[in-house]
Amino acid sequence: MNDITIIIDKLIAFRNERDWEQFHNPKDLALAINIESSELLEEFLWKKPEEANKEAIKEELADVFAYAFLLAEKYDFNVKEIILHKIKMNGEKYPIQKSKGSAKKYTNL
Amino acid sequence: MNDITIIIDKLIAFRNERDWEQFHNPKDLALAINIESSELLEEFLWKKPEEANKEAIKEELADVFAYAFLLAEKYDFNVKEIILHKIKMNGEKYPIQKSKGSAKKYTNL
Amino acid sequence: MNDITIIIDKLIAFRNERDWEQFHNPKDLALAINIESSELLEEFLWKKPEEANKEAIKEELADVFAYAFLLAEKYDFNVKEIILHKIKMNGEKYPIQKSKGSAKKYTNL
Amino acid sequence: MNDITIIIDKLIAFRNERDWEQFHNPKDLALAINIESSELLEEFLWKKPEEANKEAIKEELADVFAYAFLLAEKYDFNVKEIILHKIKMNGEKYPIQKSKGSAKKYTNL
Repeated sequence: MNDITIIIDKLIAFRNERDWEQFHNPKDLALAINIESSELLEEFLWKKPEEANKEAIKEELADVFAYAFLLAEKYDFNVKEIILHKIKMNGEKYPIQKSKGSAKKYTNL
Repeated sequence: MNDITIIIDKLIAFRNERDWEQFHNPKDLALAINIESSELLEEFLWKKPEEANKEAIKEELADVFAYAFLLAEKYDFNVKEIILHKIKMNGEKYPIQKSKGSAKKYTNL
Repeated sequence: MNDITIIIDKLIAFRNERDWEQFHNPKDLALAINIESSELLEEFLWKKPEEANKEAIKEELADVFAYAFLLAEKYDFNVKEIILHKIKMNGEKYPIQKSKGSAKKYTNL
Repeated sequence: MNDITIIIDKLIAFRNERDWEQFHNPKDLALAINIESSELLEEFLWKKPEEANKEAIKEELADVFAYAFLLAEKYDFNVKEIILHKIKMNGEKYPIQKSKGSAKKYTNL
């Protein structure tokens, strides 16, 4: 079975055993992604990138992924497809010639 | 090949073609995850959960995933493993008996 | 003395007594604002707006303000002026006639 | 009249002219603070702190303040009082002797 399917199945099982689907509307899942993303960010606060704690980052990043997968499942998105599609769209916004070596936003290219 | 491997390979190829690895230190990747998470959140602002635009959410969620996978790759994390490990840890923080049907944080259970 | 001046003076005194200015570069202050904003957001997670805990919100909102004032001070911004200026700019983006009773973003008006 | 009172009065007038109070429940105001905080953060993305654009930061920070003041008003908080109170609480969490020159979180002091 595919890894993404395994992850989502485990997350859904965890949620259902606790009867939490009632709380998991898409808006609150988007809040949860933001909250976990900020806990991840906190691991870097007042620090140089290389000073952050790898083990703590592992846990916080796992939480970001967990809620992102739960939101994807809620809308029945195919995670691989939506990412590959976005990469294609970004390729049009950021043509290699214009964007190579530049951190500028596409609106400023 | 595994879906997660395919996604990461595509993201890395996109990044390398543009010579963007120089910008992608872990701290700024964590910033990027936060910024994309907030663009996702904006799709729900002033709205009921069911009023949000599914197509827009698809794009913003793809961006969250993209930077989350890039950060995982930076630390050489196995995404499936870190999520399954976190689910196990959460199972200890949220025992079914105590947490069933409750949205309370584990610190308040 | 003006309230905003009093607030900023107290924040700077607190910071200087702890020799924390060395950590307070503008980028990390922006991270801190995001982290505190998400702690504020967490008070509303899985809840209806009216179910949130007012005392907890008071504390988290105070933290958001604290770092926002510290960042303003860092750039020597006059807080009142920048807000009144932004209100004026927003008045042009959101003319009353077009935006009255509508939650649409100005890009969609 | 006090600066903070002037700011809040202007923000409320702007809101009421557009009949937007109906959208401004505390939960969505907390979302708005997060969204604006991330737009502020985006000004620092892939950059050194000193490379960020001061004019853009001025605008984004003004937006953070605007929604923070609107949320404070919603709960009838006295902004000066809640910040001074939080500074006092933080003084207990971060005694000068223990925290001087250290960026550690109080939980790790």
